[in-house]
Amino acid sequence: MNSRHNARRHLLSISDLETADIERICDLTESFAEVSRRRIPRVPALRGRTVVWLFYEDSTRTRLSFEAAAKQLSADTVNFSVGSSSVNKGESLRDTVEAIEAMGIDAIVVRHSCAGVPHRVADWIDASVINAGDGCHEHPTQALLDLYTARNRLGDLSGASVAIVGDIAHSRVARSDVLAFTAMGAEVTLVAPRPLLPLSLEGWPVKVSHNLDEVLGEIDICYLLRMQLERAASLDVPSLREFRAEYGLDSARANRLRDGALIMHPGPMNRGVEIDGDVVERPNTVITEQVANGVAVRMAVLFLLLGSGLDTSENESMAA
Amino acid sequence: MNSRHNARRHLLSISDLETADIERICDLTESFAEVSRRRIPRVPALRGRTVVWLFYEDSTRTRLSFEAAAKQLSADTVNFSVGSSSVNKGESLRDTVEAIEAMGIDAIVVRHSCAGVPHRVADWIDASVINAGDGCHEHPTQALLDLYTARNRLGDLSGASVAIVGDIAHSRVARSDVLAFTAMGAEVTLVAPRPLLPLSLEGWPVKVSHNLDEVLGEIDICYLLRMQLERAASLDVPSLREFRAEYGLDSARANRLRDGALIMHPGPMNRGVEIDGDVVERPNTVITEQVANGVAVRMAVLFLLLGSGLDTSENESMAA
Amino acid sequence: MNSRHNARRHLLSISDLETADIERICDLTESFAEVSRRRIPRVPALRGRTVVWLFYEDSTRTRLSFEAAAKQLSADTVNFSVGSSSVNKGESLRDTVEAIEAMGIDAIVVRHSCAGVPHRVADWIDASVINAGDGCHEHPTQALLDLYTARNRLGDLSGASVAIVGDIAHSRVARSDVLAFTAMGAEVTLVAPRPLLPLSLEGWPVKVSHNLDEVLGEIDICYLLRMQLERAASLDVPSLREFRAEYGLDSARANRLRDGALIMHPGPMNRGVEIDGDVVERPNTVITEQVANGVAVRMAVLFLLLGSGLDTSENESMAA
Repeated sequence: MNSRHNARRHLLSISDLETADIERICDLTESFAEVSRRRIPRVPALRGRTVVWLFYEDSTRTRLSFEAAAKQLSADTVNFSVGSSSVNKGESLRDTVEAIEAMGIDAIVVRHSCAGVPHRVADWIDASVINAGDGCHEHPTQALLDLYTARNRLGDLSGASVAIVGDIAHSRVARSDVLAFTAMGAEVTLVAPRPLLPLSLEGWPVKVSHNLDEVLGEIDICYLLRMQLERAASLDVPSLREFRAEYGLDSARANRLRDGALIMHPGPMNRGVEIDGDVVERPNTVITEQVANGVAVRMAVLFLLLGSGLDTSENESMAA
Repeated sequence: MNSRHNARRHLLSISDLETADIERICDLTESFAEVSRRRIPRVPALRGRTVVWLFYEDSTRTRLSFEAAAKQLSADTVNFSVGSSSVNKGESLRDTVEAIEAMGIDAIVVRHSCAGVPHRVADWIDASVINAGDGCHEHPTQALLDLYTARNRLGDLSGASVAIVGDIAHSRVARSDVLAFTAMGAEVTLVAPRPLLPLSLEGWPVKVSHNLDEVLGEIDICYLLRMQLERAASLDVPSLREFRAEYGLDSARANRLRDGALIMHPGPMNRGVEIDGDVVERPNTVITEQVANGVAVRMAVLFLLLGSGLDTSENESMAA
Repeated sequence: MNSRHNARRHLLSISDLETADIERICDLTESFAEVSRRRIPRVPALRGRTVVWLFYEDSTRTRLSFEAAAKQLSADTVNFSVGSSSVNKGESLRDTVEAIEAMGIDAIVVRHSCAGVPHRVADWIDASVINAGDGCHEHPTQALLDLYTARNRLGDLSGASVAIVGDIAHSRVARSDVLAFTAMGAEVTLVAPRPLLPLSLEGWPVKVSHNLDEVLGEIDICYLLRMQLERAASLDVPSLREFRAEYGLDSARANRLRDGALIMHPGPMNRGVEIDGDVVERPNTVITEQVANGVAVRMAVLFLLLGSGLDTSENESMAA
């Protein structure tokens, strides 16, 4: 699944995926969503495989989602989350991952506050590497679950109009989503005040708006980003109150969306900042569906990268 | 198992249980204690079910006991213990548990320093919620294992006399035990200095004594609470030395208990404060039995809440 | 496997092992290394057994290695790593481990910053205890994997010459390795500046050198210890620069080793201190093999201590 690295062995960036790859992941996700709905949601596809969480940055829901996915595939999981104390012990990242691989681990799911770390890890080892968020760079499984959720509701996304709203500058979700939605033929508009946009957008296949109200009536998907409150204090950004007044999705704004337009958010939400509590409850708000689909998407990714323990042809038929 | 909430889906408080419920749990515990004694102590009853530990407060032994119980039932477990850093990230508890549920989790075992949190969680989600200790409110599985241990040793508890000794005011164990023992027809006396009693005992079906020595000869169970040393400094309580002199169970006091009277403690103990080291070793001190029975009691609770993956009639026969 | 304690139930120190025990572990390791190479590296040998990690000191790779070993044997694992906060709660170590045992746990893998803690734990309980590192005392499974790796490469070690280089004084690895290599008939030379040697070496079956360059050409194994950078500042030791100049294994020194002499390190390495980066890549540097063999060695140890759930004669045949 990665061109620079051994193809189909890592998931590092959405940019490594062909449109056909994304469609294959979405099809597999459909199969695994069916598994998740079974009375005993378990298949033996990855029995005997071991997946390690190498998380250098705090996470709860992403790790839990991967863990639920791995368990439904009968893979074993080991947690290697790294508190600051261990990092201080001074072991190099390279030695850590080489040791992990030497122990016979099949996949490493990496989260790190520095962009590019998962790529470096993939350079060093033969085990599969999955980027679970690297700094402000990418979060590819989030984008895949967003895409799957949107397609599931709206069908074909070619020509669909997507607004991504909020703190684009610090969002790895935004970067991955721009790539994923445009790969499927959608048109993306970034909606944010200038200080929350990247310094340069050169090469981004997007439009930009500083006015959510102008955009609202023309979009099929309103994708709200989490406002990172812990960062807001130190930034040259409008105050939260101002941000909410101009970019927060309250009921009045939600009413002006087209019929059927989706409201999405990667979670966790700041209710009363980027989204109001009653907007969360609307029938076209698919935030809970995103979370639910995340497990099935991650099952598809783990399955494609690690195989099923059967030969490929059997895998394909099982996945079909 | 809960009247306010969907019956038989949560375990939030002993007060939600009928006497018949408690007896059913004790009977099931008997079956599962037998499983625990097998050479391979595993039954497939909850295969494919996933249980999450949502612990906002430090715990070691309670989590371990639930984990051992889940594994013996073949359930998968995921840890979601929350360090202070994550809490600071500002995600609301509601969004956290809704996300957990969306991932297909079947049960959430909650420990939180605030009373009532497990009840609120149960209001929000359909998955089963088990209260593993909420503030100074309740710790129902502890009370159930205490009850099971006492019945196992003493038989029918109706008319039995139970003294609960020590820091009642801050003890969720005391609250749950008062409800559990009185539900089975026992009579409970709280034995503590005034500052360690709740401000009001209105409605508590208990007697009160400030003199352990007066009570010792008349009780069937001497239940010692953990003196919370980390809290003692800041409280208007007698010094530890004074407390030990008047309420600590040393050998002399233990000798004055009736033949066959049980000495119980929820652990962890402060040897030399509420209990002396040599009292721990007496044949009627059942503290280790309490710990051992805790696993089987939690198996019974998980099994009753989550079903067996078989239909109900089969469950019943299997549990019998 | 322990003379003072119930034989064959604990692994506390290399000194408890007969040479025949070590050879038996190495033979079993060979079998389990074969399991690790299978497409689905799982055997049901310890199904239904539960192993607890009781780690009072930070660890990542040792815990991961044990965890991989336990999973390949189908044992369940529970993590009981203890942050400083829990330790402060004041529960005695004895009550903790007695509670763990009461819950039906089969083995406790203990790491603690104080020498002797695993021995005390073994005094208190019937479950198996494995020392995963106790202060500056011992780290027996590390020594066993070192031995297995060396034998695998060099064959019979009797008469082999082993240099252990670096911070001997603070190294539990050095202590266990001295015992293990001499038990197999090798001759060990400790190579270190005086401040990094123990105050007394009375009774150690070793030679001592303060000059690595004099030793290099005469050894079969050059075992480099991790220089504990976090400790270096506060010690009466040569500066790191000086240490590296006199005791660091750079390319020039590595070139002067005999053909076929092994370079070993327990990890994590400080590249550029005790070992240079390009030395790590040499064909006779077996550091990654050590890590890989560690999983199989720990499988052998867990299997020998916990049995297979079959009777002994069947175990033997299975292990053969």
